[in-house]
Amino acid sequence: MEQTYKQRLRDKRLEDRIISEETAASWIKDGMTLGLSGFTRAGDAKAVPSALVEKAKEEHLKVNVYTGASLGSDIDRLMAEAGVVNKRLPFQADKTMRNEINQGDMLFVDQHLSHTAEAIRQDVLNPIDYAIVEAVSITEDGMIIPSTSVGNSSIFAEKAENVIVELNLAQSDAFESLHDIYELGAQGKRQPIPLTQVDDRIGTIGIQVDIEKIKGIVITNQPDSPSTIVPPDEETATMANHLIDFLRKEVEIGRLPENLAPLQSGIGSVANAVFHGLLDSEFTDLEVYSEVLQDAVFDLLDAGKIKFASGCSITLSEDKLEEVYWNIDRYRDQLLLRPQEISNHPEIIRRLGLISINTPLEVDIYGNVNSTHVLGTKMMNGIGGSGDFTRNSRLAIFVTKSIAKNGDISSVVPFVSHVDHTEHDVDVIVTEQGYADLRGLAPKERVPLIIENCAHPTYRDQLYAYYEDAWEKGGQTPHVLEKAFEWHTRFKETGTMKAAALQHS
Amino acid sequence: MEQTYKQRLRDKRLEDRIISEETAASWIKDGMTLGLSGFTRAGDAKAVPSALVEKAKEEHLKVNVYTGASLGSDIDRLMAEAGVVNKRLPFQADKTMRNEINQGDMLFVDQHLSHTAEAIRQDVLNPIDYAIVEAVSITEDGMIIPSTSVGNSSIFAEKAENVIVELNLAQSDAFESLHDIYELGAQGKRQPIPLTQVDDRIGTIGIQVDIEKIKGIVITNQPDSPSTIVPPDEETATMANHLIDFLRKEVEIGRLPENLAPLQSGIGSVANAVFHGLLDSEFTDLEVYSEVLQDAVFDLLDAGKIKFASGCSITLSEDKLEEVYWNIDRYRDQLLLRPQEISNHPEIIRRLGLISINTPLEVDIYGNVNSTHVLGTKMMNGIGGSGDFTRNSRLAIFVTKSIAKNGDISSVVPFVSHVDHTEHDVDVIVTEQGYADLRGLAPKERVPLIIENCAHPTYRDQLYAYYEDAWEKGGQTPHVLEKAFEWHTRFKETGTMKAAALQHS
Repeated sequence: MEQTYKQRLRDKRLEDRIISEETAASWIKDGMTLGLSGFTRAGDAKAVPSALVEKAKEEHLKVNVYTGASLGSDIDRLMAEAGVVNKRLPFQADKTMRNEINQGDMLFVDQHLSHTAEAIRQDVLNPIDYAIVEAVSITEDGMIIPSTSVGNSSIFAEKAENVIVELNLAQSDAFESLHDIYELGAQGKRQPIPLTQVDDRIGTIGIQVDIEKIKGIVITNQPDSPSTIVPPDEETATMANHLIDFLRKEVEIGRLPENLAPLQSGIGSVANAVFHGLLDSEFTDLEVYSEVLQDAVFDLLDAGKIKFASGCSITLSEDKLEEVYWNIDRYRDQLLLRPQEISNHPEIIRRLGLISINTPLEVDIYGNVNSTHVLGTKMMNGIGGSGDFTRNSRLAIFVTKSIAKNGDISSVVPFVSHVDHTEHDVDVIVTEQGYADLRGLAPKERVPLIIENCAHPTYRDQLYAYYEDAWEKGGQTPHVLEKAFEWHTRFKETGTMKAAALQHS
Repeated sequence: MEQTYKQRLRDKRLEDRIISEETAASWIKDGMTLGLSGFTRAGDAKAVPSALVEKAKEEHLKVNVYTGASLGSDIDRLMAEAGVVNKRLPFQADKTMRNEINQGDMLFVDQHLSHTAEAIRQDVLNPIDYAIVEAVSITEDGMIIPSTSVGNSSIFAEKAENVIVELNLAQSDAFESLHDIYELGAQGKRQPIPLTQVDDRIGTIGIQVDIEKIKGIVITNQPDSPSTIVPPDEETATMANHLIDFLRKEVEIGRLPENLAPLQSGIGSVANAVFHGLLDSEFTDLEVYSEVLQDAVFDLLDAGKIKFASGCSITLSEDKLEEVYWNIDRYRDQLLLRPQEISNHPEIIRRLGLISINTPLEVDIYGNVNSTHVLGTKMMNGIGGSGDFTRNSRLAIFVTKSIAKNGDISSVVPFVSHVDHTEHDVDVIVTEQGYADLRGLAPKERVPLIIENCAHPTYRDQLYAYYEDAWEKGGQTPHVLEKAFEWHTRFKETGTMKAAALQHS
């Protein structure tokens, strides 16, 4: 191992800065703000946060924790259990942390993933005391080479007072040259982002900081947590087919080129299933411009269906992870990882004209989308990049099963209990029932399409009943405000959204 | 007049295409789609739509009407009264048309103002049969020079099958060279928009189309409708002062430069009052990058406070209109009018780091904003550009009086009855009570700030009562869904949002 880390720590000036994770943790004081690498469980700082949790067992310690997105390695769970987090942003996806947030024991700021870097640059958030970023190597001239994600690591390192690097020997150093780090500069003084094609390289291969800021280097040897997505099932495969049918028709009428447009897909099993559906489709020469690259992207690369994939992190299942990380050279000319500010930047998303595919918690009959709040109040994970993509994509698509909890929850409701994406932004909704293309339609034109094509048959009459009641009252977007959330309150009271007449059907 | 229009119609090839508005209207058939110039009452096509309304009195005629934004000259009212409109987009602000929309007699698609051009380019909307655009002149080589707005005229003219020009002698031809027309091109094939400063000129001075498409030229002589904004009152002046106090503090702590950042302001009296407030402030060398340029922008230009103003239209009160239009040379080096796709483009808004100032209908205790729907159902005007700016600005500010209807409506409610701007996007809320800076705050941190600093004292206890009730139930964003819209339903039933205990206070 001695030899290995020396090959990876190539800047001689930093050789004497190797420290233990306990030493690093000892520098972190109550009230500080930390910027941690990590995006969708990939490339997260692992050792120092764990040591910090241990330290918090001995003394009072509350810190603000900023990340790229969700962390792996149980870090969010351990931090939540230790009560070490005062404020967390911009995203999390851990059950224990979620509970703590919803119990009011911890503050959570749910941000668009492209906005965090801008807020840090504007000095709007607490200044970052320590950036703690995972790397596969540090070059001769002190450039930090990230591992399996970039996330917000570059802006953290740039703006933090101090930087701690976790040099992770369990991550392949073949990742070197797979990143493209671009710094935007101050608003009002910056140039256009010179990216016009998915495969454009516009920056450097790593993060360059003043090496005086690098206070310590912790050598680690711990793989990323594998993703938790489940393989496609019959329903997700059906959804994928509906979506692909829709795209096929768009090509037929000349609205999309034969190789579609660069694809973005949110994290999760549904989005992964859609990408899997493309494997068996006629589409080739596909491009991906996304946040997280999941198993299916690599399956599509292996099958020669994808020309190029640009992302911000790589999150894979256990088997795929092993295969990809240690054969990464195979993908060298087809892969780039960028800061999340660039992978999710409205400028690029609009310029390239992406097709974005994300998963809602619920949609309503007018096309508003709730991506975050269960029953309008409890945080699930966060909006993530769905807003960045949805607002600016050429085609903003939401894909969900029409029901959940054995049919006691309808994913199509009269009025979503929290709005993350407004009717102005949502183009197409897909469920296992079919799809509703909402583009250019007034609210009242959308209703029958959404009910007929997307809602589960169990709930269609009930949705129509609400709508007819609302229609009587008139308006651009008819609602019966007294009953708008009746489905949600009924679920809380009775365990089902089904109206009484339906409850034993 | 003969002489005058000849000076303005300089392309000899078009001399024989002068027609009457009745002839133009005769070409327009039932079921067609029209693209009309016009943005915030400025630069609208006037004669042909009026002739069309007359024609519709004689025969069945329903057309789709796309514009830049609102029209003047009572066109929307007349079209609504004549029942001539099947579908209208992306914005309107006429009382009669609003009623027709809300009664369900007309379809209205409420779009982000930067999105319409993109949808047209993607062939997602009905193809445009006739673009009808007002101009001050046509150059020797057939370039159409718009008048007081650009709006969507350039994309309409580009994509329409036929173009009719209204050459309006009542508009000063000194507007020639005040426009900057830039065409983005197809998504996936376009370059970055090369605009990095407010005063950058990136395009041509007019709209170039294949002159074979110019089917007719109608000579008109009718001024724009003046704006209907009212002068600042004590309350709007107080709001302006709170906002300026906030900006001053941002400068003091180094977050903003001394000349602030380019300013955007929505249309209306409140936004105009805020700009008026800057007249008496210490701020100089200001820049404006906005949609509509109202009276106050010209007052600030006259006072030497603004260096440069970029907009998409000029909408002025009657007095100011007379003064500005015929002395437009005075502003020649300080003014540009751009297509609304460019004035409102996320790429530019984010790059320049705008301060955007818009007016909500209502806000809620977590910072969500309703800009469009009265009591959640009835359309007021439309979202306009507020979404384009709010999502991408450096500082997204909403300014409103804390109460309306003599205090029977609170502008701060538990849950907005329609969401146009989500909690992820709203930075600062200002009322005559003060301001709430929401940046970097979790939902629960925002509540006391919004109630204490923004809500009217009459409603503060009532808001706290709702929140305390909700807090008991927990969650990231506590709500009592059963009571979320109680304030709105109470207003409908009793004429006031005040709870019973307060109703005679």
